[in-house]
Amino acid sequence: MFSTDIQIRVRYAETDQMGYVYYGNYATYFEVARVEALRALGINYSELEKQGVMMPVLELKTKFIRPAKYDQILTIRISVKKMPTVRIVFDYEVFNESNELLTVAETTLVFVDAHTMKPTQTSNPVTETLNKYFTE
Amino acid sequence: MFSTDIQIRVRYAETDQMGYVYYGNYATYFEVARVEALRALGINYSELEKQGVMMPVLELKTKFIRPAKYDQILTIRISVKKMPTVRIVFDYEVFNESNELLTVAETTLVFVDAHTMKPTQTSNPVTETLNKYFTE
Amino acid sequence: MFSTDIQIRVRYAETDQMGYVYYGNYATYFEVARVEALRALGINYSELEKQGVMMPVLELKTKFIRPAKYDQILTIRISVKKMPTVRIVFDYEVFNESNELLTVAETTLVFVDAHTMKPTQTSNPVTETLNKYFTE
Amino acid sequence: MFSTDIQIRVRYAETDQMGYVYYGNYATYFEVARVEALRALGINYSELEKQGVMMPVLELKTKFIRPAKYDQILTIRISVKKMPTVRIVFDYEVFNESNELLTVAETTLVFVDAHTMKPTQTSNPVTETLNKYFTE
Repeated sequence: MFSTDIQIRVRYAETDQMGYVYYGNYATYFEVARVEALRALGINYSELEKQGVMMPVLELKTKFIRPAKYDQILTIRISVKKMPTVRIVFDYEVFNESNELLTVAETTLVFVDAHTMKPTQTSNPVTETLNKYFTE
Repeated sequence: MFSTDIQIRVRYAETDQMGYVYYGNYATYFEVARVEALRALGINYSELEKQGVMMPVLELKTKFIRPAKYDQILTIRISVKKMPTVRIVFDYEVFNESNELLTVAETTLVFVDAHTMKPTQTSNPVTETLNKYFTE
Repeated sequence: MFSTDIQIRVRYAETDQMGYVYYGNYATYFEVARVEALRALGINYSELEKQGVMMPVLELKTKFIRPAKYDQILTIRISVKKMPTVRIVFDYEVFNESNELLTVAETTLVFVDAHTMKPTQTSNPVTETLNKYFTE
Repeated sequence: MFSTDIQIRVRYAETDQMGYVYYGNYATYFEVARVEALRALGINYSELEKQGVMMPVLELKTKFIRPAKYDQILTIRISVKKMPTVRIVFDYEVFNESNELLTVAETTLVFVDAHTMKPTQTSNPVTETLNKYFTE
């Protein structure tokens, strides 16, 4: 498997009047975690899109266990546990500074040809790079 | 069960450079749908919070089937299929103007006492009002 | 001049932990007001972009006088007070349900050719339609 | 005067279908810049709020010169050019990685007593700390 940790500080804009991070904003944190995980693998998602590979999200599941609060530095542990095919599944665990687990989530993304906007089985930098994490 | 339809027009701010509604923004659409569903039941969520009942989200599951686009009027069909207890589950189906199914989702919320921020079994306007949809 | 009123209900996602609408979210309200003002003039901004006319924002000025709160229905009075040239200036006044003035703002937008992404003097449906409000 | 530089990487969520950062999202960047500028001065805004000092924004002016794009690292140069009184003015210049000026902005904030939600002249950690930048 492949796993890496990303840190994000909670912005004021991301809180709501309950005093917590609004539940919809975690999707953005997961996006940042995915992009930084790819960067850690040597892949620039922005370049990938320019090369014609897009990765829209097919499915998102999130469990909200404890609230995140303003100005906290959140640690997002992002993992790829299975070799991606036309789809890739990312798992997330979000921790606060006291190492309490706040949120767990899973997203499924699909590799899409930017021209046809259809799923593509063609090998791409993401599957090629992740391959070595799943073959020994 | 209880079910109602809500309409929301996609804002420019909600699109991303893929030309679609950003996947994280559906959570906001679901929030609007919940609040309007409660309003259709005669319940004002804002008043509910002032009376000390909060409804944070415990779980969110979303499947993204087709993209939503700028300026489309989305119809969100929101349903409560089981009598709520300390938790309440809302189901969502999002349709575009051609009646194509774009997204399906489910959220689980918990009734929380605003003073203790702990789950509460106490009957509240939501469970009292929904009761009649599940008892005949 | 041309002026019309738009109504927007404040979403939970748009509040922050101060209990007010986050100051950055007014820009989205102004966008909605512009698009609905154009629609009131018979112009669909989405179609306009497809026809190759884009209207990026050059300048935004906002004064925050009183806070807007969750679930309030805001009335946005949007006006065009001068005949647009290559630029168009929109003025905004935001009122709450007690008719208190919450915010005043002004945005300057520029007509841009979507292909060159450069400002264009060419007449377009917006200037053509607004023309009759400024010529008697 | 006091000035410092902050860096922010553009998130996918922050782009719109024009392919640029949505104009409303700069307000969030400016908030992050303010909070980090205060932190550079030894002041934690989150603690400040807990101590009863809030800093709502009274006025925002932004000029959009060039677009910011996905995944770019933006440098925000934030400055306080005048000794704050009951109000404090922050100036911002946003640069891309080629050192091109994208945006200039100015925000005016007011020091508010969190209990009365009214402006307060009482000295506070921000004015005390900034004092030394304006007195020699």
